[in-house]
Order: sequence, then structure tokens, then C-alpha cells
Amino acid sequence: MPLNILFAARPERWAEYETPLRAAFDKAGLGDYTLSMDIPPEDVDYIVYAPNSPVQDFTPYTRTKGVLNLWAGVEQITGNETLTQPLARMVDDGLERGMVEWVTGHTLRYHLGMDAHLFGQDGVWRKGAPPLAKDRPVTILGLGALGRACAETLAHLGFPVTGWSRSQKDVPGVTCLSGDDGLRRALASAQILVLLVPYTPQTENLIDADALDTMPAGAFIINPGRGPLIDDDALLARLDDGHIAHATLDVFRTEPLPADHPYWAHPKVTVTPHIASDTRADTAAEVIAENIRRGEAGEPLLHLVDRDLGY
Amino acid sequence: MPLNILFAARPERWAEYETPLRAAFDKAGLGDYTLSMDIPPEDVDYIVYAPNSPVQDFTPYTRTKGVLNLWAGVEQITGNETLTQPLARMVDDGLERGMVEWVTGHTLRYHLGMDAHLFGQDGVWRKGAPPLAKDRPVTILGLGALGRACAETLAHLGFPVTGWSRSQKDVPGVTCLSGDDGLRRALASAQILVLLVPYTPQTENLIDADALDTMPAGAFIINPGRGPLIDDDALLARLDDGHIAHATLDVFRTEPLPADHPYWAHPKVTVTPHIASDTRADTAAEVIAENIRRGEAGEPLLHLVDRDLGY
Repeated sequence: MPLNILFAARPERWAEYETPLRAAFDKAGLGDYTLSMDIPPEDVDYIVYAPNSPVQDFTPYTRTKGVLNLWAGVEQITGNETLTQPLARMVDDGLERGMVEWVTGHTLRYHLGMDAHLFGQDGVWRKGAPPLAKDRPVTILGLGALGRACAETLAHLGFPVTGWSRSQKDVPGVTCLSGDDGLRRALASAQILVLLVPYTPQTENLIDADALDTMPAGAFIINPGRGPLIDDDALLARLDDGHIAHATLDVFRTEPLPADHPYWAHPKVTVTPHIASDTRADTAAEVIAENIRRGEAGEPLLHLVDRDLGY
Repeated sequence: MPLNILFAARPERWAEYETPLRAAFDKAGLGDYTLSMDIPPEDVDYIVYAPNSPVQDFTPYTRTKGVLNLWAGVEQITGNETLTQPLARMVDDGLERGMVEWVTGHTLRYHLGMDAHLFGQDGVWRKGAPPLAKDRPVTILGLGALGRACAETLAHLGFPVTGWSRSQKDVPGVTCLSGDDGLRRALASAQILVLLVPYTPQTENLIDADALDTMPAGAFIINPGRGPLIDDDALLARLDDGHIAHATLDVFRTEPLPADHPYWAHPKVTVTPHIASDTRADTAAEVIAENIRRGEAGEPLLHLVDRDLGY
């Protein structure tokens, strides 16, 4: 019997994903299958899923063996009680590489003081080289696949990197901390802070007034994680009084970020439109094909979500 | 007999270097020495030298065993016929790290399209992630210590890196080319071009109109090497007609770059004030101390300049 694979995402994604998915399914040897945006729920074997898809009630998908998320973040569906099928996050090499490139680029931008050059082309030759990376401590909150990859690359470039995570991790070349006391220490040394913890009820407003006060004066914040990790009012206050030097934010409580949001016009904030890590269709399709192959072979799915932890 | 070590650089450098040099000399066990900006020429054993020093006639330095340059570049003195003493370039780990950080930062800035975000904070949410580094070919001209270190780091980040040098080199993970045909191939694939060849009569205007035409449309140029590597008029013409998208220039034929030079005001040029690699006093002092130790022990000096090659 052919496999029925439902593509449940916004219609504009179909054009992007159909060809890569079919290529990956053929490469994985899935045999006969139907891939479509329109399959009766009771006939669906697998759902290729984006959390902003119209599919929100999973009750009628009675024979579905796996919901395969196109995104790394799953916070929009872990609370959905109709979703009892196995749920897999996207862990895409392309997504990870894109994140490493974006985080490394903006870390070096702050480290090198690039903005002063880009915005100060006034004909005045001001000598003064930046310090070396070895004298610029960077802290990464979150040591999942993305945080760990960023930590390793920044350490390779010579930055002293501190990583913090809920449970203690071990990353070679990175000072790994955990727990509340570890968080304070990680913040206290952070000349540049990168936010890559998952968004859960416990991490909402992790970067609040208290956390910002713990950071050294003149620190920089880079948030490619999730918008609600930051207490926006607290950050704006500490940017205004100069304690935080600048922030580059890729994610927001409301996306697209509304045109009248104070972040857009703030001279100490750079807004980027949730581009730090975009799932790349070609590499993501291979991850999805491998999970369907596993499901059909009776092997455990990769990257299963723990519904209690929320990621 | 105590060693007489002349510090021949501009007076403002003395404050920066005296303490690091004394610390490094003691650490290297040089014993009794005099370090000063004022020693009779006939009594000088070693000269710690900056090419913009007032010392330009080396004839009276009859017992000097080594001229130890504070800079990596030696093109200002290799033509000095009075300089018959052994001449060593500065090869400083701090200088190399600084160069890698600056080149990697500006390469990622172009790769990620950062300027569009920094200068376009207009409240409009424009989706569209950059390609991955694996799809962004970078070419580095020059595979000496600095070029090689940059090539290795960019390859580690995932960029396909082509390196070109006068004589054929072999750098793991980097496509190494040489010769005239190799130069054309290296230029033809360069979406981002980094100039790190030494400045010699052969490399003057290496990037001329013909070389620029060989590069793909929309390419970026990063020059942390030497100003005369580029034909400035040709570059300005190709920036104006859009063939070259943007250039970041750290070095110039005349430094400081005159305030009325067209580079300063050009919307497609970023000027930085020769900061890509500054010798760091603490690490440079150790290199100089080691060379004096070697000279006194009868060992060959490190980083000797080949006066025929010019570097």
C-alpha cells in the first residue's frame, strides 16, 4: 500500500519543498507514495508539518505514525493536547550551519566595532585596533545542537566561550555551567551574550532586569533564539541608560515585528527578520525522508520531542 | 659586555613597547642589556625597528647583528642599500590572530548581507535568508602566514576557499592555485576576494581593470594587504558601474587616507584605518627577544627577509 504523506504548511512552502522532498524520498527508497497538501485525515501516514499550518486538531489523523516538524522550534505545538502522535523536531545541518554563520558574523561585528566604521565614514583616520578575541569573553545560553555548534566555532576563533544550559553539559574548549548560580556567573562575564535556549515557560523573560544588571557594563546581546526570552521593556531601559551597548535581535514576541515597535527605530538595536536559521529545503527534506524510512523500518524516529520538557 | 639594543621607532611607540620588551628580554634570559632610543650607532648590537623611524642610513651601525622589524611589511626598507645587516620581519601570533578575526568578520558581513540590515531599519520585515557559506566561494590572494591562516579559518566555517600564491602551496581544505592562469581562475570564481599578497614591484596594481573584469559581477573585495595592490581608479570605475558590489579597504597608497580621497565618501566603500593587523606589543616583544637570543647563541634568526624577493 502506498504511503500517504500530508504536507501541512502554508501554501507558499509547497513550491519550495515539493521538489526537494520528492528527490529525498526517492533517494531514501521510500517506494510508492503520495505527497500532497490534500489527503483525507484518516488516510495519512506521515505529516510534514509547520506549526503555522491550518492543521491544529490531530484527532482525525488516526493512523498517522509521525508528525515531522519543518522547524527547530516546537513551542507552538507541544501544548496541543490533540497531538498524541510521535513529534520530531527539525535538526537540519543547513539550519545549524546558517545559525553558526549568523551568530559568528554578528559576534565578530561587535568584537571588531564594525558599526563605528560603517556609520562613521567622515574622512577622519582614527587609529586603534580592537582587542584580540582571546580578550573578549562570549557567553552562549543554551547548549543544544545550535548553541553547541556556535560555541565550538567561536572557541575555534579564539574567544573564551562560556556556555550555560539547564542540565550540565560538556563541550571541549568551552567553560560549561548550569543551574541558577551558573547562570549568574555566565552572565557576569559576558561581554557578548548569545541566546539559544529553547523557549519554555521556564525560560520566558530569562533576560529580565536582574539578568541585565548582572551583565558587565557595555555588553552586547545577540538573540537568534526566541523573542520571549527577553523582557523587552527591561532591555529597552538598559539600552537607553547605556548599560547594554547594543542588541541584535532576530526573533520577537510578534513576527513580523510591527512597524511601530520601538526596536525598529532604536539606535542601539539591529532588527533582522528571523533569518538567523532558516530551514533549508534541500537538507531538511533529507532529514524528513530519513525519519519516514525509519518509521517504515520500525526504527525509532530521530529528534523526538519530549512533551514534558517542551523540546 | 652588555648588549646595546636600539629602539628605532617613532617616540610614541616607546611608551607602548618599553615594558613588554624588558619583560620579554628578562624572560628570554638576555642578561645585561641597555634598551634605549639613544645609543651611538657604532655601539648598537640590535635594532628594534619601525620603517618610519628616523634611522634610514644604516652605514654607521658597523657592529649591528640584526635589524628586527616591528611590522610584517618590509617594502619600505628592502630597497635601502645601506641596510646590509640581517633583516627580520615581524611574524607575530597576535598580528595573525587579529588579521584572521578582521578578515573573517568582514567576509561574514558581506556573506550575510549585514549592511542592508544595518542601514535599512525602516520597519519593513523582508524575509529572505542568505545562502549558506558552502555556496559562497571566497578567494584569497597570498598564502603566506596571514593568508594561510585566513584560508584555514574560512574553510573551517564552510566557505569553499581558493588560495593563490606566486609559488604553488598546499593548504588542506583549500584549492591552491599559482601562476598567471591560476590567478585568472582564482579571480573568476571569487564572490568575495581577500588581498594578502606582499607588496612587491610584481604585485603593484595586481587588481587592475583586467583583474576586476575577470571577477564575477556583484563580487566583494576586502583589502587588508597593501594599498598599491589595487589600481584605485579602476576599482572606483567598477564600483560606479556596479560590476563590483562593495569594497572594504584597510590599507592605502597614502596613509592616513587623505580626507578628500574619493574612497571616504563612496557609498560602496568602507574605509578602516589600517587596523586589520596591528602588531601587539606583548606578543611582538617575545618574537624580538627570541631573535636576539638566537643571534647571541649563534643560531639563525627567524623570519629573515630575502632581499631579492622583497619579503
